[in-house]
Amino acid sequence: MTKFAAVILAAGKGTRMKSDLHKVLHPIGGKPMLFHLLDSFEELTPAHTVVVAGDRHEQLRDAVADRNVTVALQEPQEGTAHAALMAKEALSGFEGLVMVAFGDCPMVKSDTVQKLCDALDDTTKVAVLGFRPDDTLAYGRIIAEADGTVSKMVEHKDASEEERACTLCNSGVLIAHSRDIWRLLESVGNDNAQGEYYLPDVATNAIAEGSRVVAVETAPAEVAGINSRAELAEAEAQWQQFKREEAMAAGVSLKAPETVFFSWDTKLGRDVVVEPNVVFGPGVTVADHALVRAFSHLEGATLGEHAKVGPYARLRPGAVLKEGAFVGNFVEMKKATLGKGAKASHLTYLGDATVGANANIGAGTITCNYDGYFKHQTKIGERAFIGSNSALIAPVNIGADAIVAAGSAVSRDVADGELRMVRAEQMVKPGWADRFHDTMKKKKAALKGKK
Amino acid sequence: MTKFAAVILAAGKGTRMKSDLHKVLHPIGGKPMLFHLLDSFEELTPAHTVVVAGDRHEQLRDAVADRNVTVALQEPQEGTAHAALMAKEALSGFEGLVMVAFGDCPMVKSDTVQKLCDALDDTTKVAVLGFRPDDTLAYGRIIAEADGTVSKMVEHKDASEEERACTLCNSGVLIAHSRDIWRLLESVGNDNAQGEYYLPDVATNAIAEGSRVVAVETAPAEVAGINSRAELAEAEAQWQQFKREEAMAAGVSLKAPETVFFSWDTKLGRDVVVEPNVVFGPGVTVADHALVRAFSHLEGATLGEHAKVGPYARLRPGAVLKEGAFVGNFVEMKKATLGKGAKASHLTYLGDATVGANANIGAGTITCNYDGYFKHQTKIGERAFIGSNSALIAPVNIGADAIVAAGSAVSRDVADGELRMVRAEQMVKPGWADRFHDTMKKKKAALKGKK
Amino acid sequence: MTKFAAVILAAGKGTRMKSDLHKVLHPIGGKPMLFHLLDSFEELTPAHTVVVAGDRHEQLRDAVADRNVTVALQEPQEGTAHAALMAKEALSGFEGLVMVAFGDCPMVKSDTVQKLCDALDDTTKVAVLGFRPDDTLAYGRIIAEADGTVSKMVEHKDASEEERACTLCNSGVLIAHSRDIWRLLESVGNDNAQGEYYLPDVATNAIAEGSRVVAVETAPAEVAGINSRAELAEAEAQWQQFKREEAMAAGVSLKAPETVFFSWDTKLGRDVVVEPNVVFGPGVTVADHALVRAFSHLEGATLGEHAKVGPYARLRPGAVLKEGAFVGNFVEMKKATLGKGAKASHLTYLGDATVGANANIGAGTITCNYDGYFKHQTKIGERAFIGSNSALIAPVNIGADAIVAAGSAVSRDVADGELRMVRAEQMVKPGWADRFHDTMKKKKAALKGKK
Repeated sequence: MTKFAAVILAAGKGTRMKSDLHKVLHPIGGKPMLFHLLDSFEELTPAHTVVVAGDRHEQLRDAVADRNVTVALQEPQEGTAHAALMAKEALSGFEGLVMVAFGDCPMVKSDTVQKLCDALDDTTKVAVLGFRPDDTLAYGRIIAEADGTVSKMVEHKDASEEERACTLCNSGVLIAHSRDIWRLLESVGNDNAQGEYYLPDVATNAIAEGSRVVAVETAPAEVAGINSRAELAEAEAQWQQFKREEAMAAGVSLKAPETVFFSWDTKLGRDVVVEPNVVFGPGVTVADHALVRAFSHLEGATLGEHAKVGPYARLRPGAVLKEGAFVGNFVEMKKATLGKGAKASHLTYLGDATVGANANIGAGTITCNYDGYFKHQTKIGERAFIGSNSALIAPVNIGADAIVAAGSAVSRDVADGELRMVRAEQMVKPGWADRFHDTMKKKKAALKGKK
Repeated sequence: MTKFAAVILAAGKGTRMKSDLHKVLHPIGGKPMLFHLLDSFEELTPAHTVVVAGDRHEQLRDAVADRNVTVALQEPQEGTAHAALMAKEALSGFEGLVMVAFGDCPMVKSDTVQKLCDALDDTTKVAVLGFRPDDTLAYGRIIAEADGTVSKMVEHKDASEEERACTLCNSGVLIAHSRDIWRLLESVGNDNAQGEYYLPDVATNAIAEGSRVVAVETAPAEVAGINSRAELAEAEAQWQQFKREEAMAAGVSLKAPETVFFSWDTKLGRDVVVEPNVVFGPGVTVADHALVRAFSHLEGATLGEHAKVGPYARLRPGAVLKEGAFVGNFVEMKKATLGKGAKASHLTYLGDATVGANANIGAGTITCNYDGYFKHQTKIGERAFIGSNSALIAPVNIGADAIVAAGSAVSRDVADGELRMVRAEQMVKPGWADRFHDTMKKKKAALKGKK
Repeated sequence: MTKFAAVILAAGKGTRMKSDLHKVLHPIGGKPMLFHLLDSFEELTPAHTVVVAGDRHEQLRDAVADRNVTVALQEPQEGTAHAALMAKEALSGFEGLVMVAFGDCPMVKSDTVQKLCDALDDTTKVAVLGFRPDDTLAYGRIIAEADGTVSKMVEHKDASEEERACTLCNSGVLIAHSRDIWRLLESVGNDNAQGEYYLPDVATNAIAEGSRVVAVETAPAEVAGINSRAELAEAEAQWQQFKREEAMAAGVSLKAPETVFFSWDTKLGRDVVVEPNVVFGPGVTVADHALVRAFSHLEGATLGEHAKVGPYARLRPGAVLKEGAFVGNFVEMKKATLGKGAKASHLTYLGDATVGANANIGAGTITCNYDGYFKHQTKIGERAFIGSNSALIAPVNIGADAIVAAGSAVSRDVADGELRMVRAEQMVKPGWADRFHDTMKKKKAALKGKK
């Protein structure tokens, strides 16, 4: 493939988002819109990627700091053709195909980019990306022949009745060779009501100079523009729907797919069962035959085969369940490993901890991993039994086969096979409760009497 | 505007609801249907509001006890015109516009009421409210000219083929001046199969006497009648959808709007992010840039800027989070304030408590606020550190910068900068656990042997 | 009714499910598909039921081990008619109607089976089950007259334009008398591209021999085939929708029906209110006027009248709430009974326990029911008050009106009206925390300096 560079326009103010966050940094599937686009391009190993920024360009610079991306500035903002031209300097010396895409139209797939690239040849100088929406609304139209040759690009307001009947709409995305695109962009004028330089005129001017322009078609969902939170939510919904179908096709049971939310990198094995109302944050991998029960929330977690979590399991980054391990209701794990067959069934917090195989963590167990300044480790041996309502004050080691008595606050290591109990004497006051009840009832009655 | 009185018909039995609760008291968005209607009218400051009750009128009387509403009784129930007439006595002496609405058709907006009022003039004596549903079903039709002038009101069963082709349906809601309405209501006959007095005949009779009747049109959702729990759920869904769109338009991110449930008075600031599966009960205010994570349930709670809650945060009435405060998973707050930057990250109950700025509440902390008779206060100072699994037995004060050791049950005040530890000696029994395991394994084996 | 036997074909590989579990054992509404069909037939008390298995037949044998079902083996698998014939031996000697159904088409209702049975008479030898889907796709067609008499069964690929215009599609399900069906099945040939014996040829051959074949029509949802997880999810969604509508019609309020999930045997009383996001596992019964709040998860639980649970209540099998009892947030119950008016409001685990009427279980209470080998009982008396953060180490009895002080780990019985406190002395170190803070701040600063 000819070398390829991407120009992503992201200079708009995004006013309708009503947000302090740059529009293209709002997430879909847990990943900023812009990164969806960058990742699509990445698959085709672009020689250069230029993001054209305007308003809040610092946010964009910070966001792409770790990526091989140049940020070019458009100031003032005089239209999309003007914006694309701002990438010229960053791409000086580059020879190859230049694609222009939009940061707020982030779902364009690498396959589609490939098709656009492939559409160019010696005579075809520009390829534009079209789509056929259910409702053509006020989209600009691409008037094209059956073989894709474009005869005219027309704005909706300027379109004739006949042209409006044409259902191929213009996404704005286009591609041309570096030897053509800068010249074509510079040939665009701003003789219009807004006084702006419009990108589709690149195609219009190419046609005018006798070059062939071709239309490539894609699905409407791929080029849906996002200008408001409602449109963002709609794009998220479509993306989630796609991920759900993908998971089911691969052998995952989703009892109520519409209530399960994925992140871009969620990985679920075969015969994994996911009950209703589960949220997968970034970084989750679930091995075959694992069960994720209702109301569970997983981020950065790894589940081994036949592991079971939930309902109401809250797994935070670094939670690892080995084969057949179990995390039950109202249990939180963070940077903690549950060994093979180990169980933490109820009301527990395991943070900065390692739990050996087949250990049993009683209800209400808390690893006290934080002293207000530093985090400390808890290690629990194989087959250890932690009695309910225990506090394990890290750093602390509990040996293999050791037992911690219920209600203990353990601050010193417990050796293998040892019992540790931290419990005061049982103090009994026979009749005390009866006397207390009498007193309090009188007090309550007296208070009522006063009212 | 001419003075205005509202008559709300709510005398039906609501049989299809299969409920002991009066139909119009079933809630939408956390507020009884009837109150939605009363609140709409309230915006136009009505001179009088009369609710016509029949079956279970006591429930209605109790419900409106705090409102400026008269309850009139319809007994026996002889149709809607008869019901409306029951308000005559309560409105004796009132001169102005009289609107007749339905308690089980609660989504009529004040704008619409205003339009109905404005539609009346010297020659136009009655204004009826029409709508154009997707499916006209068996609704009565309003036969009207382009300017809204009604030539005929017709029941579906009596309508000709041509009349049925008319898509303007009758909601039943109407308005007329007090000098006309009682006369028109009294002119209605009951010469029909059911022997009932029907409200639309008011319009029919007005036309018959040569007055102009005008139709005002509104959206179907606004006049959807609620006769069953399924229709109630449908109305709730439409209302929720409206609230979600309103929130997103105002700059709130809803990752999965269809899973977020609002109450009538929910207030969310700009750049608030709400993750999937969140329920807002009544009385919630969330300031700008706050984050409400998945599976959270908020009622009567106030979140400051940049506050974060959830996942699985349960905020009950009186929960207040100051700027940047954090409430994590499986944490319940009730009548409790978390100071600026304070944190309660896991498995905690804070009731009747005040927590100072930047204090850290360890996992498993419980404020023991109830002695079985009275509730008591817990006060925690700034930067205090409450070790995990602690019980704070109220009334109790923990000073600024104080530390409560993990696993302590604190019943006496802790001074500023003091350490309080309530912990028994660690009792160790080396080898005890190993011996216990041996004994129990034998016991289990023996039991199995017996089977 | 004539005696009746059912033959259920379940020999397919179910490749598209991508599952180690046999396709017909995947659940809908918490019950394996196959059992839905078996239960439908059960209502008509069949003389025999034969499941024809192939791939993974052991799984089917295990699944139906407790039922009055014969498993016949089809090996190799040479088409549906061949499969049906495999039941002949198991039904040798049986005289009566033989119905052939499909294990992966599990929603056929007993009413429909009855209609098929009733459709047969002396002249009508075969009844086939048809449906009219929104989209007829590639379904085989039943060409029938107005009275149901079938003139032709035709595969989609063999159908003429005119035949394809016919909207009655073939579900595959059919019925015939034992004196006809075996003969007809044996008359089916395999002269087709796949070399398979097709079941619809039974009808074709019956027509050919001059018998009347009749079509019985049913709703498409009833005969939807399930071949993939997506289709399974779709069937689940339809089933849930049906259950929700049924519940609402019976007087249950579902604030957001689409977020409530039922099991096949869920029983909800009149005026029960279910908030959003509730999962009912198998075995739940909820009495009139009970309230199930958001994010609750119930399995095998019984709620008395006016009981309230949630939000975030997790009721496991054997959880019983008597009249007016209350279980609040982050509370788990298992094999436990809460007496009339008793409360467990927050962060509690009640397992293998009995709680008397009007007892109050404080926040953070844990019944320590498991010693690593055996489960033990906790009994709590009427009006007892269990202070917060207590561990009740079973077996243990707490008397009526007794009080357990907050933070106690109780391992010995508490008598009626007695106070039990298990709490060490409060140890105070004035200024300790201040000194600790100083030390740690220096340490943190030193660590930062090193970087």
